[in-house]
Amino acid sequence: MSNSNDPQALGEFGLIETYFRPLTLGRAEALRLLDDAGILTVAKGEQLVVTTDALVAGRHFLADGPAEDLGQKVLGVNLSDLAAMGAKPLAYTLALAAPKSITGVWLESFTDGLAAAQALHGIFLLGGDTVSTDGPLTLSITAMGTVPSGQALLRSGARVGDDVYVSGTIGDAALGLLVARDGRKLADDQGNAFLRGRYDRPRPRCLLGRKLIGLATACADVSDGLVADAGHIAETSGVGIEIKVADLPLSAAALAALAAYPTLITTVVSGGDDYELVFTAPPGAAREILNASARTDIDVTRIGSVVEGSGVRVIDRNGQDLEVGAGGYRHL
Amino acid sequence: MSNSNDPQALGEFGLIETYFRPLTLGRAEALRLLDDAGILTVAKGEQLVVTTDALVAGRHFLADGPAEDLGQKVLGVNLSDLAAMGAKPLAYTLALAAPKSITGVWLESFTDGLAAAQALHGIFLLGGDTVSTDGPLTLSITAMGTVPSGQALLRSGARVGDDVYVSGTIGDAALGLLVARDGRKLADDQGNAFLRGRYDRPRPRCLLGRKLIGLATACADVSDGLVADAGHIAETSGVGIEIKVADLPLSAAALAALAAYPTLITTVVSGGDDYELVFTAPPGAAREILNASARTDIDVTRIGSVVEGSGVRVIDRNGQDLEVGAGGYRHL
Repeated sequence: MSNSNDPQALGEFGLIETYFRPLTLGRAEALRLLDDAGILTVAKGEQLVVTTDALVAGRHFLADGPAEDLGQKVLGVNLSDLAAMGAKPLAYTLALAAPKSITGVWLESFTDGLAAAQALHGIFLLGGDTVSTDGPLTLSITAMGTVPSGQALLRSGARVGDDVYVSGTIGDAALGLLVARDGRKLADDQGNAFLRGRYDRPRPRCLLGRKLIGLATACADVSDGLVADAGHIAETSGVGIEIKVADLPLSAAALAALAAYPTLITTVVSGGDDYELVFTAPPGAAREILNASARTDIDVTRIGSVVEGSGVRVIDRNGQDLEVGAGGYRHL
Repeated sequence: MSNSNDPQALGEFGLIETYFRPLTLGRAEALRLLDDAGILTVAKGEQLVVTTDALVAGRHFLADGPAEDLGQKVLGVNLSDLAAMGAKPLAYTLALAAPKSITGVWLESFTDGLAAAQALHGIFLLGGDTVSTDGPLTLSITAMGTVPSGQALLRSGARVGDDVYVSGTIGDAALGLLVARDGRKLADDQGNAFLRGRYDRPRPRCLLGRKLIGLATACADVSDGLVADAGHIAETSGVGIEIKVADLPLSAAALAALAAYPTLITTVVSGGDDYELVFTAPPGAAREILNASARTDIDVTRIGSVVEGSGVRVIDRNGQDLEVGAGGYRHL
């Protein structure tokens, strides 16, 4: 690895060689990043799942956060979309629009974060583009994965009577953003660090998503917020969803935050960036879903039901409707 | 189509529905842009070619240019990479980071430009992301196409003794940038408009690229400039390339510009953005290459030879080496 602090002096090809070629892991598909494009082979009986997400500094991540976390975040956000479709991650491309102030130390740390996230999911860099910008750092990743043909999880299959589940814990990332951006003290030091870590370093649930193929009737990842993403399933499936606050899986840190600031419950159910999976399945699949949870070591909790109607109703501990507004993140 | 001038009021989902869903052409693969990702099927015996390019306003295109041209440009730049690999375009994803000043009229014009470019190449929008930015408009496209397995054109196959060819005419776009950005008058009004059009509206040579499979030994698209892109072939193939100025295919407008300003020859050979194909092939393939040119109605001209050594040598009309520096566009 170079210790250069002047990426401009390297030029585009030097940048690629120094920082990005190692991320191809020597895979033939990436053609050493020397060609105009990469070449993927999709095995017989499989389809390719493709997702693109863009992140802008100061809007989707904190501009002054650790570069290594950012590598993990930008890849995690995209892999989470693959997880929601039940896809096995395969490869990704990266478009990086960087301000002139970017240093070699920053790039090294950023690509170290990407490398760590790659290793976790067994993927490699297929290609990309580095350009310079007068604006904020802007990252766009296209992630590709594979599913058995015709078996991708969609948002549109939820049926009345299905159970609604969510993986992991909910609301941590939105609380973590309050800690990181606003300096709020919501829990003890360890709890605050945990919440912030959940915002900075998402852990896409790819292993769980793959196990849900054939079990879940609909699936989405919790990127816009639990209410909004459950709402996407409800709208696309033409059903309503009821979620019980009492059943939500909450971390110890989130419980501490809610004990101190009870009104944060709306942040927990409507905040974004958890990158958990919310999905529906018929009651008869419950045992197999618990098996999938156990085999992947990812907790899964039943949080509600699919009902007739439309939209998402959140019922608080007193049996009252919790008012959460339209819910969810709107980027533009 | 909406006539709204306030995309912010539409929200992300309204934006998608109004402007972007029509670009999916109703293809099932895009899942109406309602899911976390799109799903592609790659036919047996084919591989998927994947390329990502980013464009930043004021750097890769003129910030005040027509939005419709921009749609054509951003897609053209990416499809040109597919052309260089001999791939048949299939689909693309779009990440759009837009400043708040973007209007509905602009979006309508931009997506009209995308629609026109799509139609020309038989592709559709598979997915994407729209985010907002405080910086310049930033576009990133990932384009996907297919090639017969193992037959993609690469940069690495040029052999000593091969001929070097280029499609279309060279230098027009770089001259067009001088017209558009600097207000230079290089030719008559019609000529200036032609040059500018070549900068604003690239025409990726996808049909020709496909026909070159099995004929060309190496291929690249002229995005960084003829010298730089021929240089990529030379470096990757471990050979040298000699190009004769006298043999370069030049448009009438470029000839007029060179007659008035002879030193612009360095701009012609080293300027970027032509999005033609530069490729190598053994002399025995000459007849079939002319056939491919005739069948696609895209001119192809022999401009030089592959020689032992390294780098690109440009020989002027007096038999002297033309000094063109390192040549080519360096983005960072």
